[in-house]
Amino acid sequence: MRNYMFTIEYNGRNYVGWQRQKDLPSIQEKIEDALSSLVGHTVSLTGSGRTDSGVHAICQVASCALDTTISTDKLPFAINAILPEDIRITSSRVVVDDFNARYSAKRKTYLYKIYTSRHISPLRDDTHMRVSVPLDIESMQDACTYLIGEHDFRCFLASGSQVKDTVRTIYSAKVYSVGDDEIHFEIEGNGFLYNMVRIIVGTLVAIGSHKYPPSHMEDIIASRDRSKASPTAPAHALYLKSVEYPNNIYLD
Amino acid sequence: MRNYMFTIEYNGRNYVGWQRQKDLPSIQEKIEDALSSLVGHTVSLTGSGRTDSGVHAICQVASCALDTTISTDKLPFAINAILPEDIRITSSRVVVDDFNARYSAKRKTYLYKIYTSRHISPLRDDTHMRVSVPLDIESMQDACTYLIGEHDFRCFLASGSQVKDTVRTIYSAKVYSVGDDEIHFEIEGNGFLYNMVRIIVGTLVAIGSHKYPPSHMEDIIASRDRSKASPTAPAHALYLKSVEYPNNIYLD
Repeated sequence: MRNYMFTIEYNGRNYVGWQRQKDLPSIQEKIEDALSSLVGHTVSLTGSGRTDSGVHAICQVASCALDTTISTDKLPFAINAILPEDIRITSSRVVVDDFNARYSAKRKTYLYKIYTSRHISPLRDDTHMRVSVPLDIESMQDACTYLIGEHDFRCFLASGSQVKDTVRTIYSAKVYSVGDDEIHFEIEGNGFLYNMVRIIVGTLVAIGSHKYPPSHMEDIIASRDRSKASPTAPAHALYLKSVEYPNNIYLD
Repeated sequence: MRNYMFTIEYNGRNYVGWQRQKDLPSIQEKIEDALSSLVGHTVSLTGSGRTDSGVHAICQVASCALDTTISTDKLPFAINAILPEDIRITSSRVVVDDFNARYSAKRKTYLYKIYTSRHISPLRDDTHMRVSVPLDIESMQDACTYLIGEHDFRCFLASGSQVKDTVRTIYSAKVYSVGDDEIHFEIEGNGFLYNMVRIIVGTLVAIGSHKYPPSHMEDIIASRDRSKASPTAPAHALYLKSVEYPNNIYLD
């Protein structure tokens, strides 16, 4: 048995999310099943974290122990031959035994894509959130500054979640325009609460449309009250972009 | 009756292309039918040009005569309420009577999206062409210089086409990288032959992968021989980006 780390790209549209759920299609299930049928033993895959139903990954990371003679660089091709085309293993590495994609993760970056238009964009409606009014990027960027640092982000925790420790550190958060009518949001942190990025985006959209001033973000965080933040932005425009690990984990 | 100009965005995936074909779903058919049911008379819509099956439009332009009391700025919303969601009217203007979206067009710009990867990208496979080897952007850009100007582009005309005049003028052609692994190609001309952009892209990919030197582009054009050029690149990565008209056509 050796410990493997995989990077994975997926289109979340047809899945209930990363985590395996009984009788429902999940990313974890598809990859575990593909790996098990490939190596001939049961495989238990650990993702860097869950992604919600409909959320995409440009680069999710997962780890598992495998007993296989397939060479590490051939492994992605062998697994991809079994996987559905909306999930692809993009790389494979052998890593130290105590590597765990969830607990070894140091930083994660999420990307959220918005376009502003009075009409649905047929080329982006599956992949971006549409906002029907213009957004003030400068106000959104100002609001982002309040996110930086270590804070109790309970205000951005989906109601009903059982998580106790709601303190997280945000290293960067930026809003930038792409082309004529797109606004992208990128946020990097040591971890994120359930629905946290999507609730932040909902709040940024409210600030960008001048429903609230940028300082509203500071007030919400201080309140620790989910009801003060805005509604959760849709899942289909959210992308897990990257997960960072220490450099000394690789054995190949 | 007044003459209208519409800008249209569409995802070409589910259509046989712009042009109406008996018993097959086309963009023209969907918009003509929506307009006819809206205004209560038969509508004949002229596009700036055909797009092939599977080709998308960021901004197609079409014109038609309508007898309606609906205000010009409300018209897109009224039509969009009838159209399928993968076709959207993005703007509407009243134009001079002799405006014709096809014959009044001065310039058109097409965009083609490529990514280079040994694996399918689940997030881009519907919208980009995948090339499994690295591409030399500089060689591709060098090859583009031979496209500029007025040339007989018979070499890029799909075999079987009946077009007589194969002389077109290309104003600009550029290849540029986007992010880590994407290459976009944009070409602007006074008109394009059937499959011309896709055959040029196929040829640029052959040059970018060092199958031929950049000067191969000049030789192909001089040969006027379709068989010298490379295979046609796939339709699903091609976007009609814009169509330019004179400024003096608008009545509103």
